[in-house]
Amino acid sequence: MKAIVTVMLKDGVLDPQGKAIRHALDGLGFADVGEVRVGKVIELDLLEADPLKAREKAEMMARRLLANMVIEQFDVVFR
Amino acid sequence: MKAIVTVMLKDGVLDPQGKAIRHALDGLGFADVGEVRVGKVIELDLLEADPLKAREKAEMMARRLLANMVIEQFDVVFR
Repeated sequence: MKAIVTVMLKDGVLDPQGKAIRHALDGLGFADVGEVRVGKVIELDLLEADPLKAREKAEMMARRLLANMVIEQFDVVFR
Repeated sequence: MKAIVTVMLKDGVLDPQGKAIRHALDGLGFADVGEVRVGKVIELDLLEADPLKAREKAEMMARRLLANMVIEQFDVVFR
């Protein structure tokens, strides 16, 4: 099954990449854009067939490698 | 409204970052992981209230700035 892990900066953590995108969009004429936040998405093909175990594993991967839990939060969905 | 733009490499385009993550997961003992693909997610706060116009604008932003249409594909959802 395919796990989609989305990693975003926690609320309150400054996002300079988002600010840069907002500025660039403004320069392209897209004026009515408020806040922009940027994150990562990691698609994992898991061989695990049990949905509960697959979620547990994906969350462990996110905590141990994919996200920096000090400044980032993550979310796992399956497809 | 909040537009979530997900940008992934097109199928067939090599993803060295995904390969590196797969290798690192393997090193951490997560052996049963198949392919790993990495992409970006950009959350945009749009002031546009009309859903159709908001989608049109978000897609134009993705094509003009957020995605490199030669090697990447994108997808927009609203939340």
